[in-house]
Amino acid sequence: MTALDPVLRADATTVHPRLSLNQATIKYADLREALDVTARAGYSSIGLWREPVAEVGVAEAMRLVAESGLRVSSLCRGGFFPAADAAGLRAADADNRRAVEEAATLGTDVLVLVCGPPVGRALERARAQILHGIETLVPHAEDAGVRLAIEPLHPMMISERSAIVTLGEANDLAERFDAHRVGVVVDAYHVWWDPRLREEIARAGRRIFGYHVADWLVPTTDRLQGRGMMGDGVIDLHGVRAAVEAAGYDGPIEVEVIDRTAWEAPGDEVVARACAAFLASA
Amino acid sequence: MTALDPVLRADATTVHPRLSLNQATIKYADLREALDVTARAGYSSIGLWREPVAEVGVAEAMRLVAESGLRVSSLCRGGFFPAADAAGLRAADADNRRAVEEAATLGTDVLVLVCGPPVGRALERARAQILHGIETLVPHAEDAGVRLAIEPLHPMMISERSAIVTLGEANDLAERFDAHRVGVVVDAYHVWWDPRLREEIARAGRRIFGYHVADWLVPTTDRLQGRGMMGDGVIDLHGVRAAVEAAGYDGPIEVEVIDRTAWEAPGDEVVARACAAFLASA
Repeated sequence: MTALDPVLRADATTVHPRLSLNQATIKYADLREALDVTARAGYSSIGLWREPVAEVGVAEAMRLVAESGLRVSSLCRGGFFPAADAAGLRAADADNRRAVEEAATLGTDVLVLVCGPPVGRALERARAQILHGIETLVPHAEDAGVRLAIEPLHPMMISERSAIVTLGEANDLAERFDAHRVGVVVDAYHVWWDPRLREEIARAGRRIFGYHVADWLVPTTDRLQGRGMMGDGVIDLHGVRAAVEAAGYDGPIEVEVIDRTAWEAPGDEVVARACAAFLASA
Repeated sequence: MTALDPVLRADATTVHPRLSLNQATIKYADLREALDVTARAGYSSIGLWREPVAEVGVAEAMRLVAESGLRVSSLCRGGFFPAADAAGLRAADADNRRAVEEAATLGTDVLVLVCGPPVGRALERARAQILHGIETLVPHAEDAGVRLAIEPLHPMMISERSAIVTLGEANDLAERFDAHRVGVVVDAYHVWWDPRLREEIARAGRRIFGYHVADWLVPTTDRLQGRGMMGDGVIDLHGVRAAVEAAGYDGPIEVEVIDRTAWEAPGDEVVARACAAFLASA
């Protein structure tokens, strides 16, 4: 642990009790470091990603999480359902079953689904494969006590990340299943532009299994890894949060600022900035 | 006129009769050159932009258009309604009245509206200002015999170009007015990702005043000026066109490939490529 500028160090008394740090905000930290940085800053929970968990193995990851005293607000990510052939679909299903088990082992009941891009031009087929993939996964998730949270991503990420690009579409999918089993993640960065946002948040209601915050920078210079810290962009984050809370959501709020430039900064500094930015602007 | 590689030269017999060249595809050409290139390639119409028209003055532009033998399929662009204050709103209205007059003078009855970005975080106010701006403009457009075509732009362009980012929202706006006066432009590049695309195209019906084509490159490296030629990306352009035609649209189809790298190439070459790409892939 390095000495910190006192101005940058978050104080436990200033950390909003619902705030969680999504690990992608400090992507270059390994799991142990991410847990240390997050706990030290006074957060009570963290959103984990599977890759850094896999680096140490899920059993060791579970031990490290317990040692940190942090709760795990969610695991990112299951999904990536579309595939060009049956073998690809089976591989995706097998991987998603492992993701469900990892979530349960790590003590979170929320697995975030980033649903995956279409193969080539087959957008409608991708959406059908996503529905089928979720249908196949639901019984396993139910057995494991894990809820599946479909995260619609910004349409500009459709060809790299997700064929599910609106909250309306995520709601359409989720409503095919039991409301305790399949829901959505509302990520302000991905959905703020949507003219139907308010009504789709209200419609999601108790199916909101997570709320993520970051900001839209003007200009946005990196389409995939160029999100801004809350307050640095143009999203009405107070308005989105008010809608999410009016819909009944009172769970963790994850700061997920996927920003390539911030990954170069010291983790303690980024986490402290996130904490202050959330209090001031989100 | 320079000699052309015969392989690259479009033949008038191969140009689809509904194909039009949107001038932004060859942005670095001035008006005279754009008209020359387009006519020479065998197109029967062109979509003009106001800036190159203003360079020569609208009277001279009208003369050049007549001389070229081309029809003007549309004029880009009116819009940019939102403003921070009353003076800004008045300036936008005055400019839009001029745009209507220019469209009429140039012999097109379609003025494309790119509605403008929000000021700061005021997205809902921007949308209200856009509605008000269109309401104010409609009587003038009606007097001039010009139809207003609201073009929803991709959500990733919201902070630079348009707070209107879905065809559904454009339809909502258009339906407040007479169907002969206010409609939409369907641009495949801007709307292809939308899970509601098919139903919103059907809903637009006779309000479709224009159809634009380009392709979504993977990866997309330039968020504003990085469109692909038809066939070079992943949009199901045949499917979108079929939906637009099923909705009753049988007017011009504008190639609008806003691609910074293509602007460096000779106009004749770009226009010929557009013609061949349309026949093969759109």
